[in-house]
Parts: sequence; structure tokens; C-alpha cells
Amino acid sequence: DDNLKVFTLNSNKDLAHEITDHIGLEMGKTSVDRFSDGEVQINIEESIRGCDIYIIQSTCQPANEHIMELLIMIDALKRASANAINVVIPYYGYARQDRKARSREPITAKLVANLLETAGATRVITLDLHATQIQGFFDIPVDQLVGVPILSDYFRDKNLDDIVIVSPDHGGVVRARKMADRLKAPIAIIDKRRPKPNVSEVMNIVGNIEGKTAIIIDDIIDTAGTVTLAANAMIENGAKEVYACCTHPVLSGPAIERIKNSKIKELVVTNSIPLPEEKRIDKITQLSVGPLLGKAIIHVHEQRSVSELFN
Amino acid sequence: DDNLKVFTLNSNKDLAHEITDHIGLEMGKTSVDRFSDGEVQINIEESIRGCDIYIIQSTCQPANEHIMELLIMIDALKRASANAINVVIPYYGYARQDRKARSREPITAKLVANLLETAGATRVITLDLHATQIQGFFDIPVDQLVGVPILSDYFRDKNLDDIVIVSPDHGGVVRARKMADRLKAPIAIIDKRRPKPNVSEVMNIVGNIEGKTAIIIDDIIDTAGTVTLAANAMIENGAKEVYACCTHPVLSGPAIERIKNSKIKELVVTNSIPLPEEKRIDKITQLSVGPLLGKAIIHVHEQRSVSELFN
Ligand SMILES: Nc1ncnc2c1ncn2[C@@H]1O[C@H](COP(=O)(O)O)[C@@H](O)[C@H]1O
Ligand SMILES: Nc1ncnc2c1ncn2[C@@H]1O[C@H](COP(=O)(O)O)[C@@H](O)[C@H]1O
Repeated sequence: DDNLKVFTLNSNKDLAHEITDHIGLEMGKTSVDRFSDGEVQINIEESIRGCDIYIIQSTCQPANEHIMELLIMIDALKRASANAINVVIPYYGYARQDRKARSREPITAKLVANLLETAGATRVITLDLHATQIQGFFDIPVDQLVGVPILSDYFRDKNLDDIVIVSPDHGGVVRARKMADRLKAPIAIIDKRRPKPNVSEVMNIVGNIEGKTAIIIDDIIDTAGTVTLAANAMIENGAKEVYACCTHPVLSGPAIERIKNSKIKELVVTNSIPLPEEKRIDKITQLSVGPLLGKAIIHVHEQRSVSELFN
Repeated sequence: DDNLKVFTLNSNKDLAHEITDHIGLEMGKTSVDRFSDGEVQINIEESIRGCDIYIIQSTCQPANEHIMELLIMIDALKRASANAINVVIPYYGYARQDRKARSREPITAKLVANLLETAGATRVITLDLHATQIQGFFDIPVDQLVGVPILSDYFRDKNLDDIVIVSPDHGGVVRARKMADRLKAPIAIIDKRRPKPNVSEVMNIVGNIEGKTAIIIDDIIDTAGTVTLAANAMIENGAKEVYACCTHPVLSGPAIERIKNSKIKELVVTNSIPLPEEKRIDKITQLSVGPLLGKAIIHVHEQRSVSELFN
């Protein structure tokens, strides 16, 4: 199909090639570089007039560089007469800045949605938004894929005995429930409470974990404070062993040290965000979302629903 | 005037303080920081409801970081019910990406204009746009100030004899003419020609420079290739000595080495872009545009024309 073209920017080139391999397509030719002063220099090196374009770019660290690359690429494609500009954002950065938690804060997740539309994006395909409400920040179609099936299948194949799926906070219970359904396991919830202001939090575990293999699931693991404290609390409260998993391995600051020093036996993540060399430690397993995103692109291009990809 | 507030972001804090000192105002209270993963974290720390805000930010290197800081700040101010959001951009980055020089290139100067409006900017105050057409990329008012008077006054005070103002290319002749008028001097133009493709350029000098003190003027000096070659050509063609000046000292890559090794006696620039320690060499003199921008803010706030600031 000559009408379908996939381009990658700089955030996640390996994943982008897995996607084009899955579809059986050559990568679109482009150069995405920097001028001497660091400004983004983009040139699209093949005609795209009238084509349906899919751009692969996670807005992961450095988020601002990756966002600007994406906006400038969209601008170039629009001016080169693309028919449709679908942006595939496996990790949508700034997703945690999705409401005013305090007065006079920005809502950057909404700002970025507006910027993408202003640049000329006509559709967004993404994976596990931190809050599903972010879909409503866009006035263009948003297809949201989920990582739970990929993570669940991995654990099913490990044939672990007597497992319990753990949500590290109340916000993650729906996700834990979905994984538990797939693995036919019970769930537990970590119920953090601060008894008084300026007194440290108490981790209370709701559900039975005694003697069980716990699998903690979250959407994003960033500094890994929450997940490593939760894992240690699990072991202290009688869990046999603890695994952890998430879709988006942000893993900033002290994350890798914390994971190394924690009671977590294995951390399973996807490649929505690539792991640089220094983050590829033995304890971390990375699964590919390339086939999932490849299928999603085919479904969207053929105007078929993507929801069947969840089953 | 309680209604006027000035905020600075991270690109150009010293200049921002010169501006508030000139106006006689305290700097608006805000924290502009980074989360652990590098995402911009902004909090405005005083009420700005109903106020006329001026944000000072050059979109200089790292341009993408500075643009995103500016957009996120505008978003926060808008949501905090500012009455007017005036963005003061002493150096407007991406200004050279102002047209499609080749097929399938972006026009990033226009994209950034659209992004600023989408975020909620209501006016732009800037200095020496690389092309004045960029004003037309905005649908909001743009006040453009010029650096020529400040640069000219500096050279007038030096009392140099028998000067000639030199434009390093045809695009800069209007600017050179303005400086020559102020200094009552003649002009010369460097007329670059490439005799055949893949043959190096010939620098032909139009105008008399024999025995004179040449002052080369440009808007931006980036890698300093053009200006240092021009200076050396001046000396070879009989100029007595060569000065250079520009509004925006981008000075990326080999710029500082080239200037050090060139025949340029002194390079005079403004602080539209701050010079980090390693770029503050003896040959470079930096003049402040703080009073100019301070006056411009007062004029705009009092709804007076800014054009009288040019005389
Ligand atoms: N990049 C980030 N890193 C850490 N915290 C963030 C980031 N972006 C936003 N936040 C904060 O995270 C909180 C929202 O997280 P959550 O409660 O998990 O939805 C808000 O208070 C935000 O200020
Ligand atoms: N940041 C930059 N550094 C160097 N060249 C640039 C930059 N941005 C745009 N350009 C190029 O500069 C040319 C325009 O410069 P000018 O002819 O001086 O207006 C175009 O060919 C652009 O591709």
C-alpha cells in the first residue's frame, strides 16, 4: 500500500523499526538533526503528497526536545501535503501534569494536546495514558492501547504458583483488576495513609498476601520510590516473593539504585521508553510493544476498530 | 502600578532583573524547575488575577527547553486568570527557519508563533527579528525593537576616525544603512559570489574601505564563519582595522575560536542572549538592552507607541 508511510524521530528508533518490520514496510526517509546552535533541523527526503503518515515518537526524556521534534515534523509533513498525520506516542510525557493539583499550576498534558493539534496532527495513537481523561484533552481521535495483556502474558508463561496482583495505590486498582482477571488471581491494594501531617506514611495492605507471589503493577515507574517501598512492605508482611511490572519505565534519578537494592525479584517493563545501556540491569526485563503498535497502525489504516487488540 | 507584573524564566535572568530595576518593580515570584525526569515544573507563587503580565524569555540555546518553559508558563498564567500575557522575547529562536528553502522543510518560525498563540500569549515584544516578515506570522500584536541605536551609540562614543559600515551580505544592507546614517558614515557591502557550483565563494567588496576603520554589522552571529571571513577580507583589501557588531550573539560551535583567531579587533554584542563564562573573552563587549526593554514595557503598559524608542 503506497499510501501508508511510517516515519520515526529520535526518541525510540528501535521500536519504530520493530513496527515497520511488523507491518512489512520500509522506514520513511528523513533526516532529523540539529543545527550548530541546537535547533531542530528536519528534512523529509521522499515525496509524501497525499499519503497517510504515521510518526513514531515517545515524548520521554528529554521530553522538551522530543515534543519539539514531533511538532516540527508535523509542521513539515503538513506543508508537504500529507493527507493524514497520525502521531504514535507510545509514552505520552507530561501526562502527570493533568490537573491543577495546586493553584496557579499549568495543565501541561492539555497544553501538549493543543500544541499537537495546532501543529497539524489529525489522530493520536498512544499506550496507557496516566489518566484516561487525557483523551478528552484532544479534539481529534485518540486510540489508546493498553499494556496489561502483554505484561500478563509474560507472567502467565512463567507459571508462577499462588499469585496475587497488587495495586500500589488506589488510583491503580482498575489496572490491577484487569491483570488479575487475565491471570485468574486475587488482588491486594496498598492503602497509604498519613496519620498526621508531617508524620511518615503508613503502608497498610488490604487483601491477603501471606505466602503468595505478589506482582505489583503500575503504569509509570519513575523514581521507583513507591514500588520499592511497596515491595519491601510485601515481604515484611509475609509475601513469598515480589515481582513488579509497568508499561512505561521512566526510571529517573535514583530509580535503578533503588530497584537493585530492593526486594523486587524482577521488574518487567515495555519498550514504550527505550532503556539506555546503564539502565539495562539483570533484574529488568523489557517486552516489545512493536507488534501491538504495528497491528494498531494496520487496523487504523484499514479503518477497523483497535479495541479487538485488547483481547 | 499593582496591575503590572514581570516574570522571568530561565534563559535570561540577569537581563530580566535589569528590566525590573529599570521599571522600579520587584520580580514576580515563581518557581521554574524540573521534575526528576526533566519535565518542566512551574508554580506561580503570587496571585496574578486580572494583572497585565510581561514574561522575559529568550528562546536561545537550548531553544527547545526555553520554548517549552515559555509555553508552560503562559498556560499557567492563563489558567490563573491573567488579564494580558505579553511575552518579551529578546532573541526569537528558530527565526532562520522562516521559509521553505528546500522542499519538505518545516517553517518553524511560523510554528512557534502558532504555539505561542495557542498557549495564550496576547502580545509579543521582541528585538531584531531575523526577517521582519515573522511579525506577520502572528495574529496578535508584535512590537519589534531594534539594536542599531545601542550599537551605534557605543561606536560613536569611541570616536573612531574615518569609518565605513559594512554589511556582510545583501540581506543586511538596510541595517548597515541605518547604522551609517546614525554615524554619518559611508557603507560597503560584501558581495559573495560562487563563480561555478562546487567552486569556493569569492568575496568582492562593493564600496571604498581603503585605509578606513570598518565596522561589520549583522543581526545574528552564530558560528562566526561569515563575519570572520569578511573581517579578514577587509584587512586584505586595505582596511586599517575591523570591528564587528551584532544584536544576537548565538556564538555556537567554533565561533569563539574563530573570533579569537580572526582580524576582528573587537566584537560588540547585546545581552539578548546571555554569554556563559567560557564565551566572555576580551575581544567581546556586551551592551545591555535592559533599559530599552524596560522602556518598551512601560510604553506598552501605558498604551504609548514604542516607535519613539528608536530615535
Ligand atoms: N514529571 C513529573 N514527575 C513527578 N511528579 C510529577 C510530574 N509531573 C507532574 N507531577 C506531579 O504528580 C502529581 C500527579 O500525579 P498522580 O497523583 O500520580 O496523578 C501532581 O501533583 C503533579 O504535580
Ligand atoms: N539554527 C540554524 N542554524 C543554521 N542555519 C539555520 C538555522 N535555522 C535555519 N537555518 C538555515 O538558514 C537558512 C536561512 O538563513 P538566511 O538565508 O540567513 O535567512 C535556511 O537555509 C535554513 O535552513
